Amino acid sequence: MTDSSLEAIAGRLGRSAADLQSLIARINAAAIPQGDTSWVDLIAPDAEPSLRSALEALRLADTPSPQAWSPDRLAGVRRSLSEAGVDGFIVPQSDPHMGEYIPARHHRLAWLTGFTGSAGLAILYRDMAALFIDGRYTLQASEQVDANLIEARHFQKPAPKKWLCDIVQEGDRIGFDPTLFSVAQADDWRAALEKQKADLVALAVNPIDANWTDQPPEPLSPMVPHPLACSGESVEDKCARLAEKLREDGVDAAVLNQLEAVAWLLNVRGNDVENKPLSVSTMVLHADGTVDLYVESLRLSKGLGDHLGNRVSLIEFDQLEAGLQRLGAGGKRVGLTRATAVDRLRTILEEAGAEIVPIDDCTELPRAIKNEVELTGARSAHRRDAAAVARVLEWLSRDAQAGGLTELDVVARLEAERGQEDQHRGPSFDTISGAGPHGAIVHYRVTPDSNAAIEPDSLLLIDSGAQYLDGTTDITRTIAVGTPPPGTAENFTLVLKGHIAVARAHFPEGTTGAQIDALARQFLWQAGKNFDHGTGHGVGSYLGVHEGPQRLAPTGHTKLQPGMILSNEPGYYENGAYGIRIENLVIVRESARAEGFLEFETITFAPIDRTLIVADMLDEAERGWLNAYHAQVFETVAPALDTDRRAWLEAATAPI
Amino acid sequence: MTDSSLEAIAGRLGRSAADLQSLIARINAAAIPQGDTSWVDLIAPDAEPSLRSALEALRLADTPSPQAWSPDRLAGVRRSLSEAGVDGFIVPQSDPHMGEYIPARHHRLAWLTGFTGSAGLAILYRDMAALFIDGRYTLQASEQVDANLIEARHFQKPAPKKWLCDIVQEGDRIGFDPTLFSVAQADDWRAALEKQKADLVALAVNPIDANWTDQPPEPLSPMVPHPLACSGESVEDKCARLAEKLREDGVDAAVLNQLEAVAWLLNVRGNDVENKPLSVSTMVLHADGTVDLYVESLRLSKGLGDHLGNRVSLIEFDQLEAGLQRLGAGGKRVGLTRATAVDRLRTILEEAGAEIVPIDDCTELPRAIKNEVELTGARSAHRRDAAAVARVLEWLSRDAQAGGLTELDVVARLEAERGQEDQHRGPSFDTISGAGPHGAIVHYRVTPDSNAAIEPDSLLLIDSGAQYLDGTTDITRTIAVGTPPPGTAENFTLVLKGHIAVARAHFPEGTTGAQIDALARQFLWQAGKNFDHGTGHGVGSYLGVHEGPQRLAPTGHTKLQPGMILSNEPGYYENGAYGIRIENLVIVRESARAEGFLEFETITFAPIDRTLIVADMLDEAERGWLNAYHAQVFETVAPALDTDRRAWLEAATAPI
Repeated sequence: MTDSSLEAIAGRLGRSAADLQSLIARINAAAIPQGDTSWVDLIAPDAEPSLRSALEALRLADTPSPQAWSPDRLAGVRRSLSEAGVDGFIVPQSDPHMGEYIPARHHRLAWLTGFTGSAGLAILYRDMAALFIDGRYTLQASEQVDANLIEARHFQKPAPKKWLCDIVQEGDRIGFDPTLFSVAQADDWRAALEKQKADLVALAVNPIDANWTDQPPEPLSPMVPHPLACSGESVEDKCARLAEKLREDGVDAAVLNQLEAVAWLLNVRGNDVENKPLSVSTMVLHADGTVDLYVESLRLSKGLGDHLGNRVSLIEFDQLEAGLQRLGAGGKRVGLTRATAVDRLRTILEEAGAEIVPIDDCTELPRAIKNEVELTGARSAHRRDAAAVARVLEWLSRDAQAGGLTELDVVARLEAERGQEDQHRGPSFDTISGAGPHGAIVHYRVTPDSNAAIEPDSLLLIDSGAQYLDGTTDITRTIAVGTPPPGTAENFTLVLKGHIAVARAHFPEGTTGAQIDALARQFLWQAGKNFDHGTGHGVGSYLGVHEGPQRLAPTGHTKLQPGMILSNEPGYYENGAYGIRIENLVIVRESARAEGFLEFETITFAPIDRTLIVADMLDEAERGWLNAYHAQVFETVAPALDTDRRAWLEAATAPI
Repeated sequence: MTDSSLEAIAGRLGRSAADLQSLIARINAAAIPQGDTSWVDLIAPDAEPSLRSALEALRLADTPSPQAWSPDRLAGVRRSLSEAGVDGFIVPQSDPHMGEYIPARHHRLAWLTGFTGSAGLAILYRDMAALFIDGRYTLQASEQVDANLIEARHFQKPAPKKWLCDIVQEGDRIGFDPTLFSVAQADDWRAALEKQKADLVALAVNPIDANWTDQPPEPLSPMVPHPLACSGESVEDKCARLAEKLREDGVDAAVLNQLEAVAWLLNVRGNDVENKPLSVSTMVLHADGTVDLYVESLRLSKGLGDHLGNRVSLIEFDQLEAGLQRLGAGGKRVGLTRATAVDRLRTILEEAGAEIVPIDDCTELPRAIKNEVELTGARSAHRRDAAAVARVLEWLSRDAQAGGLTELDVVARLEAERGQEDQHRGPSFDTISGAGPHGAIVHYRVTPDSNAAIEPDSLLLIDSGAQYLDGTTDITRTIAVGTPPPGTAENFTLVLKGHIAVARAHFPEGTTGAQIDALARQFLWQAGKNFDHGTGHGVGSYLGVHEGPQRLAPTGHTKLQPGMILSNEPGYYENGAYGIRIENLVIVRESARAEGFLEFETITFAPIDRTLIVADMLDEAERGWLNAYHAQVFETVAPALDTDRRAWLEAATAPI
């Protein structure tokens, strides 16, 4: 038997043990699905099976346990700030790619304050420290954050910018990390501080990194080709049409640091961040349609170069700054998207002599409008997802009322059932499994600490989704466990009427998501009720489950266009009691019955709990939609189920 | 009897005849209501009655007849452009106050091209000339414009900017009049041309003015105080709260060139432009709450100085440039609203050393949110307006089907009936009186040339409004003359369902007009129908009938707030056949039944034609609204009508 110690394996690879250990740590900092060992090829190409399993064992054994929070962190950062000659420092929840999910090494807010929620911002100013959070995190912050050292404040009372501007003094210098602020954010902070005659100062070294001794490493996962059979458009064609857009915008090149942009344009995927198949890199798209892709060569999977072709130059990621300086030195007109490009990119370019032109993200709309291959993939992924969801719903209908199940059981069951489906690649976001009162917490994320039992005669809200190679899913069902609590069916039916109004919507080209949003809310509104989130978000194609620019929301100003995928998810929440949400994904398509009109094609198939529907509250058209939808659910899902489950589905989708 | 000749009157006033004649021409260039002779006080304060009527007679006799269009105009302007060393010139439909209605001296587009429509833009480029218009003006342009010399083009195929950028050559210089372009417009044109390596060049003298020998003079009407009993808030209080906003924005002063802004902030009104009670002036609001009002002293009515108080300095209008230079020389931070400040203001300020800060129009939102006095005034004005409208509708119900009436008869009758009401000050826009097919022309303006007979068994669309000292009205009714044509009642009822959905809307604080807009359209949409205009616009308080920022429209991103007044006017149009529109004004108010919710109070009272309603298409809630509304119409209007008309109203408002 071979020696499977770190040293022995390192020796077989011709590496030092320290070197191998840091590589393994980087692999573990990524979000590679369990059982996927393709990463081994990055470290040991053509490894024989024994070496491969030894490496996988090493990886699984590597479980870093982070140090506990201590007030020394604040003190250390304050010393660094003092050395840097600044009076304060702003700590956003952000990474250099302005991502929705950020790798652990960028969890600076949590390291500094102890607060582990998904959204927040901290400001250190002289001897004061404030953590800004929204209402959903009030309790969590009070438990996690030392109130003697850091004041937890509501994000809007007042907003962080206003809070800081009210206390800064003339001549103050406020530090920020320009790799973590978008151009727009940096400009906003700078303008606000300048009004107070204070300066926003970019720090070359993040004072948190300087004090964070066990900061996790950059994640490392293979960057792999996303096949044409899934993407439906070649890299060459995508680059050509985006380059045309750049020429129209009158720019010589665009710098794109969003990982989704790279993934879509170059038909590549990775596993560097949770829930989204992304690979860390940054690219420059030139107006001639060529691309400079700055990426660690270590991540490149075999065959990736061939996949990308001549048009794409692969350049080491650490050469990005030098590359931008060359671009700037040529006096080029360089397009940056103010909302997503980080400020540091602008500074490098400007200092090198580039003319910066604010542009819209040229990949955003093309990415949002799916082609036929992507739509076919989405429909197919949703059919498989529907089978898994049906098995979970059937299981709950059998076992939940008896008691003994918990929220985490539901999460695990969903993962297990989806894991059996073809091309499954993991969750598309952290499952929301909210029993009773937890259902009212819109962004509830169940943890071992919060895990609640599913009580008899209660509501259970399950919002979950998955990544498949051919599509991304997102579905919410609210089910009655036993007899629904009083009043819940009435509210469920108001939500359902809104859901149906969106599903049935028929609207002219040019209509925006803000307009459709109102259709979903009108019935709740009439009852003096509402829900505090958008009605729908855009969804990517084996990419982010939250993607713009399209939204069904008061702020959804983008015109809906055929090929866009959106969620349709109105809800209603009684704080401390229960939550209701009904979510399907829909594709925008041309209307079958009127020229110049659009409609939605619902692609999510799962029963809507009939025990929660007050039939009298539905009008004829609404009843017609519901029964037709349920017939379609049965037709789509039944073939994938065994006899018992099929009987359950038949009852669950019977006409009302 | 006194000699009433020009010379004699001039002599009595101690003026030259030429001087008096030009003053009279300026009076006539204004939009002073018939019978209002208060203007006489500007020329001859304390004139005895005989002099007063002699002056009024002089005014009425002064009927300038403009010269006919000739191609020499184009040639002359081209010579001027050549002398100015530019290759092209852009001619917008605009004035130095970015007004909706512009005085005759700014009708440069009409002078140059012959086209008299309300919207358009011309571009001269070398030997080419193009007039850009929207679809409603295609026919009119083909009749008015010499196609051999000027190509009439659709505004969007391509847009003017794109058209010009496609043909300009490197190094070209394109002229524009910087007093007629907003800062934002100038920047857009400049950026577009720069991409083609061409320059946008501000011309010191407008080449049209240089060739327009009979260009009408600046209008002259008295600037009069708008009493506190109508405005509800003193000049002092308004200036104080706006100054606070400027301090928050970090600016030392704001330059406001929109006449509505001056009228609202300083509680003054005038009659310089059609349909809106505005007075030509420009003001600088300082962050300490003082105002420099640049206005011709000739226009100041007696007592205006006292009304304005110490806080407002009156400075001759021709000193504006010098005043801005002083402001700039002090290195002040000066706020300009990019969409409404004209580019020339920015240039003067920047060249003098000011730092320009783009700000929102600080008067816009305060102006949109009416106070209780303004709301009471609006309700009162609408009750009087309703009586006049009822008399017109009753007359039509009696006489129209017999034939013989024309569209212009309706306009005249409306004006006559409204003229009998207290505090009436004229129309708030050009009445749309559209018989049959003319009803389908959304912005139809009846002229002696277009005037059509009202046919039996047809639809008649009447959209009209008035200015009263205490409020501004705007109402549309579509009525069946005799038996409605087939299909019209179904479409009318779809429009009515949308109107009712808005009228009944109940929505949370924070809702925008874009969301409400969809409620109005949903029934038409389901039938594959729509209307090509917004559902509603903001309305001023004895100010513009079209005022922002609030709108019910896909682009209505402003949150609706209590005190805002809006129109609710969905429609439906069959080109070449008929038009349908139902319009009431509504006030946004707090909901009576749910905290944190808002609703609309309808303040327009006129019967909705029952013969056009298909009762079966209304649900219970809609029928309930309609019957309650009609009951309220009867209750409100009946007391102002004689017995016969009251009987008509009773039938017209009977429950269905």
